[in-house]
Amino acid sequence: MADWLPTLITPTPEEGFALAIKMSRVAVKMTQPDAAVRDRLRGTYAEDADALIASSQVAAHWFATVAAANDYWRSGS
Amino acid sequence: MADWLPTLITPTPEEGFALAIKMSRVAVKMTQPDAAVRDRLRGTYAEDADALIASSQVAAHWFATVAAANDYWRSGS
Amino acid sequence: MADWLPTLITPTPEEGFALAIKMSRVAVKMTQPDAAVRDRLRGTYAEDADALIASSQVAAHWFATVAAANDYWRSGS
Amino acid sequence: MADWLPTLITPTPEEGFALAIKMSRVAVKMTQPDAAVRDRLRGTYAEDADALIASSQVAAHWFATVAAANDYWRSGS
Amino acid sequence: MADWLPTLITPTPEEGFALAIKMSRVAVKMTQPDAAVRDRLRGTYAEDADALIASSQVAAHWFATVAAANDYWRSGS
Amino acid sequence: MADWLPTLITPTPEEGFALAIKMSRVAVKMTQPDAAVRDRLRGTYAEDADALIASSQVAAHWFATVAAANDYWRSGS
Repeated sequence: MADWLPTLITPTPEEGFALAIKMSRVAVKMTQPDAAVRDRLRGTYAEDADALIASSQVAAHWFATVAAANDYWRSGS
Repeated sequence: MADWLPTLITPTPEEGFALAIKMSRVAVKMTQPDAAVRDRLRGTYAEDADALIASSQVAAHWFATVAAANDYWRSGS
Repeated sequence: MADWLPTLITPTPEEGFALAIKMSRVAVKMTQPDAAVRDRLRGTYAEDADALIASSQVAAHWFATVAAANDYWRSGS
Repeated sequence: MADWLPTLITPTPEEGFALAIKMSRVAVKMTQPDAAVRDRLRGTYAEDADALIASSQVAAHWFATVAAANDYWRSGS
Repeated sequence: MADWLPTLITPTPEEGFALAIKMSRVAVKMTQPDAAVRDRLRGTYAEDADALIASSQVAAHWFATVAAANDYWRSGS
Repeated sequence: MADWLPTLITPTPEEGFALAIKMSRVAVKMTQPDAAVRDRLRGTYAEDADALIASSQVAAHWFATVAAANDYWRSGS
């Protein structure tokens, strides 16, 4: 996982959103390094309303940081 | 889903609120891409008090970022 | 629900607090539009300690944004 | 509850902490206005580890806003 | 508990971290003033993965405020 | 654990991410100092979808602070 996060800066909000999702997943990976286990669990929680809501909460948190880093992409708006 | 988030800037707080709800749902979609499953789960959690409270929490989080991006729409107030 | 959020600016912290509660409820309404269902669920979670704590957490989150928007009502203090 | 929150400004961090606790409780009161019910529930969750941790989380959230409003009481340090 | 929080300013990040933990515990104490009960509950949740994760979340929240108050101890870095 | 957090400043976002994970773990350690217990619990929650999502949420929270401390590593981007 070397060099997976060279910068928080992204050209667009969409790419920032994608980065937030990626950071969220890497954080999970830190706790559960086994991809097979993660895939199995994803199958479970993708069918669970509470887990889906929680996923969105987590993404919101990572995105908040990425968005601040990019000054909310204001200059491009 | 190309170009679904061109900017975080919205003309009004209400549109910012709507954008926050949208971002929240797209984040869910990233975990559960199947619309039929999402619809079924929504039927369930819309009847669950804890899930509704959690939904509002998630919306609050996304909105915080959108509001900051728009400098809280202060100039229009 | 047109024009329900014309501004985040309120004259006082108390009105900001009330707005935060309102935003929290509108977010719930987005997920569960049926008022009768919401009323029924409120009866349930108002008797549930975890749900009450979660409600306060959600209100805190909305309020944080409203307070920042109003620069914490510092000039009026 | 008129005039219960005239300002977010407090002379000291401790008073800010107390205000955060108060705001947290008022938010609960908005959902459950019956003091007898709240007292009964407090008896329950005060014995529940998860609820106590959640209470601290909520207090942290309210305090974050109060602290920011007071510019972290830096000038008094 | 008089004068337990004279300032949010600490000389180092580590002391800020310790202060965050302390604030988290005082907040718990506000809800459950009985030290014997708290000790008993700590014995329980220290063996519970979810509670431990939640504890870290709470600490993160308090620390965020302490760190901001100290301007992230940048001048000392 | 003396001197484990000399600074919040890191040269790169990746190192900031690693620091956030570390802070998250130290916070857990404050509640559960027994490494054997923590290892056993990690085995459990690493197989639990909700716990993994919560872990990412916690990491996001610590990272937000580290990122702000580093001004989002903007100058290096």
